[in-house]
Amino acid sequence: MSGLVVDERRLMGWLQAFGKVGALPGGGVCRLALSDADKAARDLLVDRMQGLDLAVSIDAIGNIWGVRAGAERGAPVMVGSHIDSVATGGLYDGTLGVLAGLEIVEALNAAERRTRRPLAVAAFTNEEGARFAPDMMGSGVHQGGLALDAMLAVEGIDGTILGDELRRIHYAGDLPPRSVVPVAFLELHIEQGPVLEAEAAEIGAVTGVQGISWTEFVIEGQSNHAGTTPMAMRHDAGLVAAKIAVAARETAAEFGPPQVATVGALELTPGLVNVVPQRARITVDLRNTDDATLRAAETQVEAAARAAADAEGCRLTRRSLARFAPVAFDEDLVARVQAAAEARGLMVRRMPSGAGHDAQMFAPNCPTAMVFVPSRGGLSHNIAEHTEPAQLLAGAQVLLDVVVDLLDDVA
Amino acid sequence: MSGLVVDERRLMGWLQAFGKVGALPGGGVCRLALSDADKAARDLLVDRMQGLDLAVSIDAIGNIWGVRAGAERGAPVMVGSHIDSVATGGLYDGTLGVLAGLEIVEALNAAERRTRRPLAVAAFTNEEGARFAPDMMGSGVHQGGLALDAMLAVEGIDGTILGDELRRIHYAGDLPPRSVVPVAFLELHIEQGPVLEAEAAEIGAVTGVQGISWTEFVIEGQSNHAGTTPMAMRHDAGLVAAKIAVAARETAAEFGPPQVATVGALELTPGLVNVVPQRARITVDLRNTDDATLRAAETQVEAAARAAADAEGCRLTRRSLARFAPVAFDEDLVARVQAAAEARGLMVRRMPSGAGHDAQMFAPNCPTAMVFVPSRGGLSHNIAEHTEPAQLLAGAQVLLDVVVDLLDDVA
Repeated sequence: MSGLVVDERRLMGWLQAFGKVGALPGGGVCRLALSDADKAARDLLVDRMQGLDLAVSIDAIGNIWGVRAGAERGAPVMVGSHIDSVATGGLYDGTLGVLAGLEIVEALNAAERRTRRPLAVAAFTNEEGARFAPDMMGSGVHQGGLALDAMLAVEGIDGTILGDELRRIHYAGDLPPRSVVPVAFLELHIEQGPVLEAEAAEIGAVTGVQGISWTEFVIEGQSNHAGTTPMAMRHDAGLVAAKIAVAARETAAEFGPPQVATVGALELTPGLVNVVPQRARITVDLRNTDDATLRAAETQVEAAARAAADAEGCRLTRRSLARFAPVAFDEDLVARVQAAAEARGLMVRRMPSGAGHDAQMFAPNCPTAMVFVPSRGGLSHNIAEHTEPAQLLAGAQVLLDVVVDLLDDVA
Repeated sequence: MSGLVVDERRLMGWLQAFGKVGALPGGGVCRLALSDADKAARDLLVDRMQGLDLAVSIDAIGNIWGVRAGAERGAPVMVGSHIDSVATGGLYDGTLGVLAGLEIVEALNAAERRTRRPLAVAAFTNEEGARFAPDMMGSGVHQGGLALDAMLAVEGIDGTILGDELRRIHYAGDLPPRSVVPVAFLELHIEQGPVLEAEAAEIGAVTGVQGISWTEFVIEGQSNHAGTTPMAMRHDAGLVAAKIAVAARETAAEFGPPQVATVGALELTPGLVNVVPQRARITVDLRNTDDATLRAAETQVEAAARAAADAEGCRLTRRSLARFAPVAFDEDLVARVQAAAEARGLMVRRMPSGAGHDAQMFAPNCPTAMVFVPSRGGLSHNIAEHTEPAQLLAGAQVLLDVVVDLLDDVA
């Protein structure tokens, strides 16, 4: 244990203060990346960082850092997350990880503790990808996974260009990509899933991020009259789509956890009660922590799709919408998270992340890990997103303990 | 055989003439019921009836009759169909049955043949139901299946009131409903399905109309993150819908022909690739010529839907959108159609109708049958609707032979 403690009232106070920026009527926030609300939250963050005497810097994609100097110059330990949100976001998704980082600064300052390494607290641009695709954009550009020029040219759902919006809100900084390379990266985040709550665990020691495979299947059959066309003469694109949806579920059941499979979108054309569908579009979202297993699941679902299309005399086309290989976090850092939680008497569970996070952009380049706290009912991207104050505090405390340790330990 | 023959050039000429009324750029017609185009077609029809010295009458729902007198007064033999169309209708759907009726008049007149019974040729209002629901409205009111006042008050898809439109185009007649009760009713129509073409048959001797059951299922589950929600904790409304679609197909396969099952509409909410669907809406269209079997199919699909919803922990609600019992045509008349076709050396197939027709409104009240001719590719309600002239002629000839026979035979 670090001997330092997080101040619950201060942490909750700042979470509430950020929750007022872009607040929605029924609760929650709308802080789409580079919107006026995002700018207001950025301004509030930079103000606070300056109030804490941190050296603030901004890079070319708009990522913000506040750095507390160490006894030695050189690479910092970095913590951070994001302060943008989806259109109906909660108060803690992202913001918790940034504000918990500043709580470490507060605690170190209050104890007048000088560390060997600098501590950098980061807020990354456009983690959500709700206004500009792809998501995890700021951390991706920062760590070299995404090209800066291409990202500045991205057109948003409202027709705006990302680079223009960045300049408009005055967050196009001068730091080039990859200019801050940490010795380690830690991110505290809400789980956004139901696992910790279901197992009555307080802390998730995140072992990595699931690989993600998004596939779109388009099935083309033949539009026919529902009354006059015998079953044997049909080419029903909708039936093929339904069989793919069932096959995706069966694949997940057969492979077992952590394999998950989701059919979130399924559209029929023309979509009339008495017309055999001529066309169907379906998406399949497959995730696994093991890439070979994920590939096997992809193969199995595609084979089932082809078999269903062939049996119905329909044409099948397949398109990959997204493919991210699984990310494994640093085993030593994961063990430090687990040990820190246990040392505070907290119930901890090792688990993969089902969602993508900024941390995964760091994992190929430096020791990286994450700390999860429970999400009530597994809800996120929803104004009903909630985590109890004691759970938020527990997560921030574990982050602090691990980071303060690293600030003096890491070679 | 009647000894009378249909004139192919005259029949095709009149079909082309009606095809110019409400003609669409790429072919086909748009003659929505009681539209200006429908009025123009009605005017053309009444003109021709008067030119043939038929006694024209119009009833309170706008049905049109042209009657050729018989040697005896009293109930006529009636033939007819409709001249309204869907928004993208073909040239023969409905119009063929009306114009073929007038060809019988032409042939009788040319032969100076006096019949015992009068012959009534009818065009029924709003068979398609594309502008005003329900369909088969004119024949339904005429035969007492639908209430006149309720139908006159129907609001169309364009906000107009049916009774107003009827007066606007001057086709609100004075004949009360049920004022013309025929001794028999015959309707020639295109099949609107692929069966005759697939079996290389030229004539369908229609044995009845399938019963129709339209059911909407709404499934309510829980919206969840596709990555973070373990399979065991999901309540996936989309999966339940997919299972219902598969169960509907399996039911049709198990019951065998003539049972058909179609899932034409399936909608997921929110319909995003990475969100487990919270809500699904699905329609199931079941048809059979036997009502007990149709009920058994309904029961089986509903049981499968309940089992799927229960297994997934979802709420299922069921709503009947439409339910028509099967209609059986008169066996003696069906046999006459079959015999007439065979006497002309035509390939004939006994078959049920998969679609609804004006004839079914007469079936409970008088001997009724239908004659089908092939639809190329099974297409209808489509500007690509097509039947070869020789096939149209064959259908009109069979209708003529049966009707001329009946005009002297029927007691």
